[in-house]
Amino acid sequence: MDLINVFDYEALARERMETGSWVYYACGAEDEVTLRANRSAFERIKLRPRVLVDVSQIEMKTTVLGTPLPMPILIAPTAFQGLAHPEGECEMARGAALAGTLMIVSSSANRRLEEVAAAAGGPLWFQLYITTRPTAQRLVTRAEAAGYQGLVLTVDTPRWGNKERSARYPLTGSTYKANFENESEGDLPDPSCTWEIIPWLRSLSHLPLILKGILRAEDAQRACEYGVDAIIVSNHGGRQLDGVPATIEVLPEIVEAVAGRCEVYLDGGIRRGTDILKALALGARAVLVGRPPLWGLAVNGAQGVAEVLALLRDELEQAMALAGCPSLSSIDRSLVRLSYVP
Amino acid sequence: MDLINVFDYEALARERMETGSWVYYACGAEDEVTLRANRSAFERIKLRPRVLVDVSQIEMKTTVLGTPLPMPILIAPTAFQGLAHPEGECEMARGAALAGTLMIVSSSANRRLEEVAAAAGGPLWFQLYITTRPTAQRLVTRAEAAGYQGLVLTVDTPRWGNKERSARYPLTGSTYKANFENESEGDLPDPSCTWEIIPWLRSLSHLPLILKGILRAEDAQRACEYGVDAIIVSNHGGRQLDGVPATIEVLPEIVEAVAGRCEVYLDGGIRRGTDILKALALGARAVLVGRPPLWGLAVNGAQGVAEVLALLRDELEQAMALAGCPSLSSIDRSLVRLSYVP
Amino acid sequence: MDLINVFDYEALARERMETGSWVYYACGAEDEVTLRANRSAFERIKLRPRVLVDVSQIEMKTTVLGTPLPMPILIAPTAFQGLAHPEGECEMARGAALAGTLMIVSSSANRRLEEVAAAAGGPLWFQLYITTRPTAQRLVTRAEAAGYQGLVLTVDTPRWGNKERSARYPLTGSTYKANFENESEGDLPDPSCTWEIIPWLRSLSHLPLILKGILRAEDAQRACEYGVDAIIVSNHGGRQLDGVPATIEVLPEIVEAVAGRCEVYLDGGIRRGTDILKALALGARAVLVGRPPLWGLAVNGAQGVAEVLALLRDELEQAMALAGCPSLSSIDRSLVRLSYVP
Amino acid sequence: MDLINVFDYEALARERMETGSWVYYACGAEDEVTLRANRSAFERIKLRPRVLVDVSQIEMKTTVLGTPLPMPILIAPTAFQGLAHPEGECEMARGAALAGTLMIVSSSANRRLEEVAAAAGGPLWFQLYITTRPTAQRLVTRAEAAGYQGLVLTVDTPRWGNKERSARYPLTGSTYKANFENESEGDLPDPSCTWEIIPWLRSLSHLPLILKGILRAEDAQRACEYGVDAIIVSNHGGRQLDGVPATIEVLPEIVEAVAGRCEVYLDGGIRRGTDILKALALGARAVLVGRPPLWGLAVNGAQGVAEVLALLRDELEQAMALAGCPSLSSIDRSLVRLSYVP
Repeated sequence: MDLINVFDYEALARERMETGSWVYYACGAEDEVTLRANRSAFERIKLRPRVLVDVSQIEMKTTVLGTPLPMPILIAPTAFQGLAHPEGECEMARGAALAGTLMIVSSSANRRLEEVAAAAGGPLWFQLYITTRPTAQRLVTRAEAAGYQGLVLTVDTPRWGNKERSARYPLTGSTYKANFENESEGDLPDPSCTWEIIPWLRSLSHLPLILKGILRAEDAQRACEYGVDAIIVSNHGGRQLDGVPATIEVLPEIVEAVAGRCEVYLDGGIRRGTDILKALALGARAVLVGRPPLWGLAVNGAQGVAEVLALLRDELEQAMALAGCPSLSSIDRSLVRLSYVP
Repeated sequence: MDLINVFDYEALARERMETGSWVYYACGAEDEVTLRANRSAFERIKLRPRVLVDVSQIEMKTTVLGTPLPMPILIAPTAFQGLAHPEGECEMARGAALAGTLMIVSSSANRRLEEVAAAAGGPLWFQLYITTRPTAQRLVTRAEAAGYQGLVLTVDTPRWGNKERSARYPLTGSTYKANFENESEGDLPDPSCTWEIIPWLRSLSHLPLILKGILRAEDAQRACEYGVDAIIVSNHGGRQLDGVPATIEVLPEIVEAVAGRCEVYLDGGIRRGTDILKALALGARAVLVGRPPLWGLAVNGAQGVAEVLALLRDELEQAMALAGCPSLSSIDRSLVRLSYVP
Repeated sequence: MDLINVFDYEALARERMETGSWVYYACGAEDEVTLRANRSAFERIKLRPRVLVDVSQIEMKTTVLGTPLPMPILIAPTAFQGLAHPEGECEMARGAALAGTLMIVSSSANRRLEEVAAAAGGPLWFQLYITTRPTAQRLVTRAEAAGYQGLVLTVDTPRWGNKERSARYPLTGSTYKANFENESEGDLPDPSCTWEIIPWLRSLSHLPLILKGILRAEDAQRACEYGVDAIIVSNHGGRQLDGVPATIEVLPEIVEAVAGRCEVYLDGGIRRGTDILKALALGARAVLVGRPPLWGLAVNGAQGVAEVLALLRDELEQAMALAGCPSLSSIDRSLVRLSYVP
Repeated sequence: MDLINVFDYEALARERMETGSWVYYACGAEDEVTLRANRSAFERIKLRPRVLVDVSQIEMKTTVLGTPLPMPILIAPTAFQGLAHPEGECEMARGAALAGTLMIVSSSANRRLEEVAAAAGGPLWFQLYITTRPTAQRLVTRAEAAGYQGLVLTVDTPRWGNKERSARYPLTGSTYKANFENESEGDLPDPSCTWEIIPWLRSLSHLPLILKGILRAEDAQRACEYGVDAIIVSNHGGRQLDGVPATIEVLPEIVEAVAGRCEVYLDGGIRRGTDILKALALGARAVLVGRPPLWGLAVNGAQGVAEVLALLRDELEQAMALAGCPSLSSIDRSLVRLSYVP
């Protein structure tokens, strides 16, 4: 089987993984309306290419919070990467290094954050749920000590989503959360967590703070007022509240509300270079990909991760060239139209 | 088979019930355009969750016309509950009591309203068609005497709808209307009934009066002028006039017309906690569920009814938590968007 | 098989007819986009019923150009009714009489217009294509002499449409055009026909003149200026120019342009009483049905025609009752909404 | 099998061609969203026919850049026509001559442009990619010498599109590019090509210059400023950047931007006479067809090409007659409506 796009990796990963593990990754919450919307929304957005632009050099180097990256594509935090590969997050980190990009390591990892850092060859951010403040504090301290360069606070998970499809298949793979000193510590997010967590988190480390899971302008506005360094527009891959919009649909209102005060990234449904181009045109500085690198990991370990990221990178380069955008700065809002025939 | 959402109860009820009984419950009028719309309309409405709100306590206690309820979910009136369970409405009433919610008992019940009241452990309202004024008067008097706390006048049924799918399957179960002293008495609604029925009904009892079946602003306005206590936005589960909108689509115009003068509830297509949340955000004080408790009744009697209601309650709690709404009063119009890409 | 709606008659007619004859009736032009649109457009239009209206008497008697009819439903002109029944148009005319409604007899009939008139028991209009002026003159003179009460000039057929589906099936039934004295006379419409045909046609008889096939406001405006008595909004059942809108979609612009200066009828896709109600709400005085009476004719001759018309009549009565419209005059534009969620 | 529309030719060509060759022609880029959109967009656009217009003579003669043509339909440039017929572009040119229309010969032809010119019996334009300036100069000089009457510069191809479906099937037919003196010369378009190529190309010959591949108003505006003679609105048959709109969707903005300063043609998804009529109504002077003549070529050589073009011509004539448009000048913007029910 040729592996010429990320869907090929998806199909092959499905063959190779245990069903329960596959479904755990693939599923969304409840009726999966949002899961499907994350994909279908991209299809409705149209590109408006420019012609006769010199695209002999396509420049997509960028920075996220000052960290230089070869491309505006990050690895999203996803739990239990051991379901895809025996080396789990360590192997994913090696793949990120091969691809030269930044990996956001989930706190719900099968491997300890220090192990992952040791395996990594590039920048890492650490994803955090607030379970208890002492636990969070220990994790932040450990992450900073281990060399993580950013702290991603997931804010859409006061409770775990109803992943019904997954609930119907036994998950035989490991859901051991290696970062927690005792089993129960990482099980339940603290539902009482409010915006006051932000200054408290700030006080624990020098790490920049990124909020993941913002879906409305009012919250983006507030995040700016609290001085966060970046926002990740995310619906948790359709795995939390079913019925929220596709992330690409709300990106414009978030970008408008932020008005340049912090960086904005988009997470959700990215499968093609043209998806990335659309997100950039609508104001995202970079995108996160979650499931695609997991597919690469399942298919071919670190090498597979790098292959998937290279595919997306090449597709983005191709899309930029065909759209007449030789650089990230040449990508603007006029490159997309949200709908045509009214 | 796991029963993790109400659709699981639907599937199991379908297996366990006689085909004719199943189809009688499942069907809509004519081409079932409205029946389908009741579901699909919810899917088009998107939720806009708030993050970093303290949702450690989700408070969904409410009142309907002063009656306290643990949740904004009522049991809609549905006919012939004996098709689902030998004890029919009595068993449903036991289920309502287990769930702690209010049941609206159909006048087209297999059991006498007094029997149902005797079986019940919680508040009941009595649903009424006007067949003749003497019959209606007898029923109202009996209902008040039996302890019913509200009178629900169904106003969308000057004739029975064309339930064609049901007409193609013999209904072998009982359609005996126990409340009527002779067989023919309850067969035909009076098509000449007008708004003047309202003051007449008022004169018969002290019960609050709820109109069920309002679908346009002008009628909601008029209902307020006639002093009704509440309006149920309903299209009779898609079983009366095919081609009317989904109820969730007309809810905003009704709420606007009512302008707080009476309570407004929504009936039609509720299958998920997120559906309830959308209805509340668009101005409903509570919702009615009709088929889901029937499925519970068919699957497991009163216990099944309580299970279905608990599922919906838990899903609503989950949806409120994930949407950042710790209380009913925190749910507002900004929580939903009717469409995204124009 | 129960015959409870017109779709049941459609299915049974399909079984009973020769394939070529069936396809000739069923097909539309080219890709049949318009054929499908005629149906799907009705589904998007929603009804806004009124409640608590006295609907004990539903009054749908009306007139078309002064001719009293028991209901606002006419039989559309359709060619070669001998494909459905050995007695062809004569049998259809008997069915129209049983139903008490008006039949528009196609000039492309298998039976001579005088034969049809002799078989009929109610009002007839005669449908005309202009092939040559002498031929047209002879037909008009004969029609007036035979007692026809109106002249329907079809204006959407300067050429025959590309009925591709029909072209793929041999039509073994008769396409003999009995009204024409020699075979070739009725074969080709005159493509040079312009608005000047109207005063000329007027000069030939005292019959009122109805234009069939108007689809845009400018033409409706012009028809009024030429003093026509009525307009039939029609796309020829999707059989002429594929890609024109559903007739119900253009009805509003026609009604607005006419502004009461002549009567407006709607033809195309009517299969339900609710379709008729929607057409009336959007300003049609009556509707034409073409294929449904053909199905009735194929299934059960004149009796079948009457049954189909009775079904539609009963469904309209039901729809009027459930919509709170006891009379045609109570049906207004506010009864429909063209779309809900924007 | 009857061949009554171009889809019939498509089906037969598919049977007769090697799979790899077929897929090469049929496929679009990546997920083929744009490929499908090119067709589906036409279906959403509705025609508004005029009636009672003299359509006894349908006049569709036109000119493109002064070259008289019997109809507003050109043959689009497509590569490797040898995949469809042993004589390749020479045979296509014979078909164009039989149809009396203009053929745009691809620079990626299996036959040398001089051979094609020798076989041709009507006007030819030469399509050009800029690979290197010397190569382009040689081709332009040769094309002018060989009697080509126009130069079509394709501007949407700084890189070859990702034709993934084609990549999955081996292309066993010839992809020899006969116009290039050595193999590598024609392989890669120059991605550094900018608007400055226009005056340079102008300086090489007296041929009029047509830009193919414009999809946004700003570029159309610029093309006019650079003095091009015509613009072809094209998305390369959905084979370059997936996710761009259907060409018919962007035609209005291009026509508006051009404001009559140069001719505008439409390329993409034309399969019916009504599609052509819609394009003309939205401001195109003519349309290009790419795949349909290839299907004709595969089915029946030059004769097949002529048959396909005759089908489209006849369908356009039919559409014009049924829409009340006896001449190209009678086709105006009011003939179409982009959407009906809002």
